[in-house]
Amino acid sequence: MGKEIEKKFIVSGDAYKSLAKGVLYRQGYIFFDKDKSVRVRVFNDKGYLTVKGTSTGISRLEYEYEIPVGEANEILEYLCEKPVIEKLRYKFQFEGFTWEVDEFLGENEGLVIAEIELPDENAVFKKPDWIGREVTGDPRYLNSNLVKNPYKNFKE
Amino acid sequence: MGKEIEKKFIVSGDAYKSLAKGVLYRQGYIFFDKDKSVRVRVFNDKGYLTVKGTSTGISRLEYEYEIPVGEANEILEYLCEKPVIEKLRYKFQFEGFTWEVDEFLGENEGLVIAEIELPDENAVFKKPDWIGREVTGDPRYLNSNLVKNPYKNFKE
Repeated sequence: MGKEIEKKFIVSGDAYKSLAKGVLYRQGYIFFDKDKSVRVRVFNDKGYLTVKGTSTGISRLEYEYEIPVGEANEILEYLCEKPVIEKLRYKFQFEGFTWEVDEFLGENEGLVIAEIELPDENAVFKKPDWIGREVTGDPRYLNSNLVKNPYKNFKE
Repeated sequence: MGKEIEKKFIVSGDAYKSLAKGVLYRQGYIFFDKDKSVRVRVFNDKGYLTVKGTSTGISRLEYEYEIPVGEANEILEYLCEKPVIEKLRYKFQFEGFTWEVDEFLGENEGLVIAEIELPDENAVFKKPDWIGREVTGDPRYLNSNLVKNPYKNFKE
């Protein structure tokens, strides 16, 4: 059973830039609703097809498969809702856990989100001091929702 | 570009049973609408994830990937609309083309559909004499629609 357990936080400042090199991610959704999504993602010249299920607490069913990057780009172009999400991802280790900071571009420019993947729902972890408010349960910050309601429209 | 070009016909009688051995297929849809679908299919102990796009004429964008059969069964169980489509597929050659006859089970019992995959939209081909009416353009006979509106509800 593919399970993904993660927490999400707002990031302020750009200290994360000194901790890793940003990698361009392009991703789109063939379908998504409140319960599940089918996503296509391209980065480092590789393509991925990902099926995500319902969230129970902070964990979700997740199945990810590598696919030919040319086909991933075709699916992004012809079968995904626009605009495609673009972001620079910074990946680094902090106190024993992997963190991923997404610096969004385009319609979502200005939004920076940090994610930590956890081994179980009760894992204890330390946060860099520039990590802000937790938004794990806030659907507005789901990438799929950022397609239809981009960050530039948010009234903070 | 993954393209699938095929024609569909109603089948009468069971002459097809002497031409091949029936293989059990179980398939479900994580999502589908009039333009596209994401399907999971299991047969011969293998799993497949398939993305299909809009039909233009009789051809469609199609991308199919083999996935671990255990994960395919999990996705069928937890992320696909019910009921799962079950059918016996008979695959054989006839006058230079591959034919697939699907004998549906469960809610769609009684429905038998033959499909021929063509190299291009104008290909000329011969049909076994037990092949009936063409239903290529009829959305009722799309497997995805047979989930919500099974054959037992059809008023022929």
